[in-house]
Amino acid sequence: MSTPAARAYQALSDRFRRLSALEDAMGMLSWDRSVMMPAGGAASRAETSAALATLHHDLLVDGHVGDWLDEAAEGAAGLTAWQAANLREMKRSYIHSTALSGELVEAVSLAASECEHVWRTARAESNFALVQPTLTHLLGLVREVAQAKAQALGVSAYDALLDEYEPDGRSADIDVLFSELEAFLPSFLPQVLAAQGAEPPAPQGPFPVATQEALCRRLMQTLGFDFDHGRLDVSTHPFCGGTPQDVRITTRYRDDDYSGSMMGVLHETGHGLYERGLPTEWAGQPVGRARGMSIHESQSLLMEMQACRSREFVTYTAPLLREAFGGSGPAWETDALYKRAIRVERGFIRVDADEVTYPLHVILRYRLEKALIEGRMEAADLPDAWNALFQSLVGVPVPEDRVGCLQDIHWYDGAWGYFPTYTLGALTAAQLFAAAVAADPQIPAGLERGDFAPLLAWLRPNIHARASSLSTRDLLIAATGKPLSTEAFKAHLQRRYAV
Amino acid sequence: MSTPAARAYQALSDRFRRLSALEDAMGMLSWDRSVMMPAGGAASRAETSAALATLHHDLLVDGHVGDWLDEAAEGAAGLTAWQAANLREMKRSYIHSTALSGELVEAVSLAASECEHVWRTARAESNFALVQPTLTHLLGLVREVAQAKAQALGVSAYDALLDEYEPDGRSADIDVLFSELEAFLPSFLPQVLAAQGAEPPAPQGPFPVATQEALCRRLMQTLGFDFDHGRLDVSTHPFCGGTPQDVRITTRYRDDDYSGSMMGVLHETGHGLYERGLPTEWAGQPVGRARGMSIHESQSLLMEMQACRSREFVTYTAPLLREAFGGSGPAWETDALYKRAIRVERGFIRVDADEVTYPLHVILRYRLEKALIEGRMEAADLPDAWNALFQSLVGVPVPEDRVGCLQDIHWYDGAWGYFPTYTLGALTAAQLFAAAVAADPQIPAGLERGDFAPLLAWLRPNIHARASSLSTRDLLIAATGKPLSTEAFKAHLQRRYAV
Repeated sequence: MSTPAARAYQALSDRFRRLSALEDAMGMLSWDRSVMMPAGGAASRAETSAALATLHHDLLVDGHVGDWLDEAAEGAAGLTAWQAANLREMKRSYIHSTALSGELVEAVSLAASECEHVWRTARAESNFALVQPTLTHLLGLVREVAQAKAQALGVSAYDALLDEYEPDGRSADIDVLFSELEAFLPSFLPQVLAAQGAEPPAPQGPFPVATQEALCRRLMQTLGFDFDHGRLDVSTHPFCGGTPQDVRITTRYRDDDYSGSMMGVLHETGHGLYERGLPTEWAGQPVGRARGMSIHESQSLLMEMQACRSREFVTYTAPLLREAFGGSGPAWETDALYKRAIRVERGFIRVDADEVTYPLHVILRYRLEKALIEGRMEAADLPDAWNALFQSLVGVPVPEDRVGCLQDIHWYDGAWGYFPTYTLGALTAAQLFAAAVAADPQIPAGLERGDFAPLLAWLRPNIHARASSLSTRDLLIAATGKPLSTEAFKAHLQRRYAV
Repeated sequence: MSTPAARAYQALSDRFRRLSALEDAMGMLSWDRSVMMPAGGAASRAETSAALATLHHDLLVDGHVGDWLDEAAEGAAGLTAWQAANLREMKRSYIHSTALSGELVEAVSLAASECEHVWRTARAESNFALVQPTLTHLLGLVREVAQAKAQALGVSAYDALLDEYEPDGRSADIDVLFSELEAFLPSFLPQVLAAQGAEPPAPQGPFPVATQEALCRRLMQTLGFDFDHGRLDVSTHPFCGGTPQDVRITTRYRDDDYSGSMMGVLHETGHGLYERGLPTEWAGQPVGRARGMSIHESQSLLMEMQACRSREFVTYTAPLLREAFGGSGPAWETDALYKRAIRVERGFIRVDADEVTYPLHVILRYRLEKALIEGRMEAADLPDAWNALFQSLVGVPVPEDRVGCLQDIHWYDGAWGYFPTYTLGALTAAQLFAAAVAADPQIPAGLERGDFAPLLAWLRPNIHARASSLSTRDLLIAATGKPLSTEAFKAHLQRRYAV
């Protein structure tokens, strides 16, 4: 059935396979830059990556692609559901890429690079005034981007930025969810702090790095990671990169603490298992990609927070830890290790936050970045607004901007509209885990003996194998019977922390 | 002066910078495949690399490029010497790429891949008959390639293949040089074997891999390698890859021998120093690339054979080796180490050969591949022809094809016309080293105290910084005052081996 529409779809499919190859190459170069590249390679690597990005952009905005999209749309009735979803995702990529002029893309890229550079000093010196002018400039350009994409996508300015990380994500929905969390967490938090009692003693190191690494590898395999299709390496900022056939996870080790690298690796392994579970028959096509940032983060948080900080899994790992590090005494008892794994505190730093306070950190950033994008606030207002909101949400005053509005790289590096996906991911993780356990009540018992097969057996068909074939909303409904809500997350917190 | 010719040159320059970025990306992916990639990543990596290669090809044969080349040529009088050389190299790349149909490129690629696969078994079983049909098929396609390129370049079929590795290389010149070597080496070899006396005792291991690696890194730095712009890693087949700003050298270690990895690393460091010395102002342009395989090999062989197997450098390394490995006794004496470093023997394997017999291995392959390409011989004739020629050149009978015509991957992997560059490189290395020492007689004394600065100070401006601005012939004349000859090589052998 070689209709013009079918031929157009085929041409798109070929083009996007080529784009995907470029993305895979860029992903590997990015991994290499963080893990392997000597410092002196930075300048030429930046040129190589920029050239690949330009090639990618040119191949995507090329006049043919728009024509093919129109032609293929005319034959949409003849497409399978996956092909139709593929076409939808192709169109999304095309709109995002064509919405902006080359000049604007370059201006934002330069401004972000400059701002990120200044931010490093500003953060070190806890001096917001230093970065304020360049942040103001960057924000101006980001607002232009938001306006241009809003027009192209037919959504609000903030949602246009959000859409890049969370396809079809809408702030109206986020507002509802976050309001529910805001009504719950600030009063729940003091209860948790009161209930959790004194901090158990900390296991004492040193914890040899080689032992930590061996432990991480062992636990990655326990979760289902296949080292024939992936690696574990070291980088300053841990991440999960690579491709679905070759997942590259990184961590960093400190010899006075093993839990940071271990929990980080379990978190990234959740990301990696998702990538590995994507359907190979759709490899290289937009529909074959991970669904979006909230689903991706749900997979890492499901592993880290729902599964690996559970009493069951701590029961499994406690003897392994004692054996690996030669630990004994009260700090190494299973109950003490569990209580440390779910310890809650009013901290200032998002990346160090526990799962109870983490959403408060995110809600704060979401409210502020939305106001900044919508022009209801200026960069200069950021420190005061941050500190006031932090006091009201978390209940403690911010001592300095270094641990306040200067702590995260995101805004200074041009990533606006990303923050809410962390908490959408946490809500999704809770809802998915509850559905998985409802479907197979043996899952928790599996965790207690280090058997993740039952959990993975549910995640594979319900989430991983569906890739981007459904919208995020429909994916949640298909997997759990309902759209995203705060219900499972709140129930999970109640169960774990309010006992 | 924005004439049409100047604009065309500029357009070509932009296009080739983009092509270079793709080449750099492909180079890094290739390094990653050999050094880092888990086995399960092979299939998708092959697709990624093939897609990048197709993109590269498309960007090069694109109709504009031919037009720009014609337009730029009309303004050639206004170009600087480097720009003119750049245009010449652009044209060479274009002709090589456009000479072949996409179908032929794909057919050769498939046939080579298949033949290489079968060859692995054939070599392991020493069974040439097994690979003969697929080699015959591949040879047929390679002959087609040679014919098509011969027509496009206006040279003979063999020279058309040679041109890809050795730009402007001509077999008429090689025939003269190789005939001189053939007239000299077979009678020189027995003299060397008689003169060198009994083999000195071998240092006894084990040689811990960590110690070997530390030693390799130290000696790389001694030669001038900058680890801020490069790495040393492990791979099955040692190579020098990466980019001029980020040189990736690999080796492999055996704990019963340190000299294999050490000499291999010194060899690859010669390649790496060349890449690092290319002019950054021409980075990304064809004229900024290394000149060709004979010059590249001359840089590795100059370091390995001329400098690092010299009595001066062995005098420098001997105490380092004794200290690193705790060696003492007759095997570790400087004179014994030197005699082992320049030991000559009638071996069957090219990659293990010393510098006296190596050219004989190459001449054999050159004669055979030329006859095969020109249709004067068929694949089926290979074992008999190989064994007869080996007996006449090296003076011993080949016991089995595994160590005869099945030993090298090159032909079976589609690389025809490559072999002579090894020996052209050896001749060039001798001629360059002699010129360097004539220009700065302190160079050998430098080697004796581990000081490569004088040698590098000559190589940098005379070879490295000239990149592809001159033809290989003119580069040799500029650096040594004369075109390539066998004179310096023969004098070097006489000096080192006939004492």
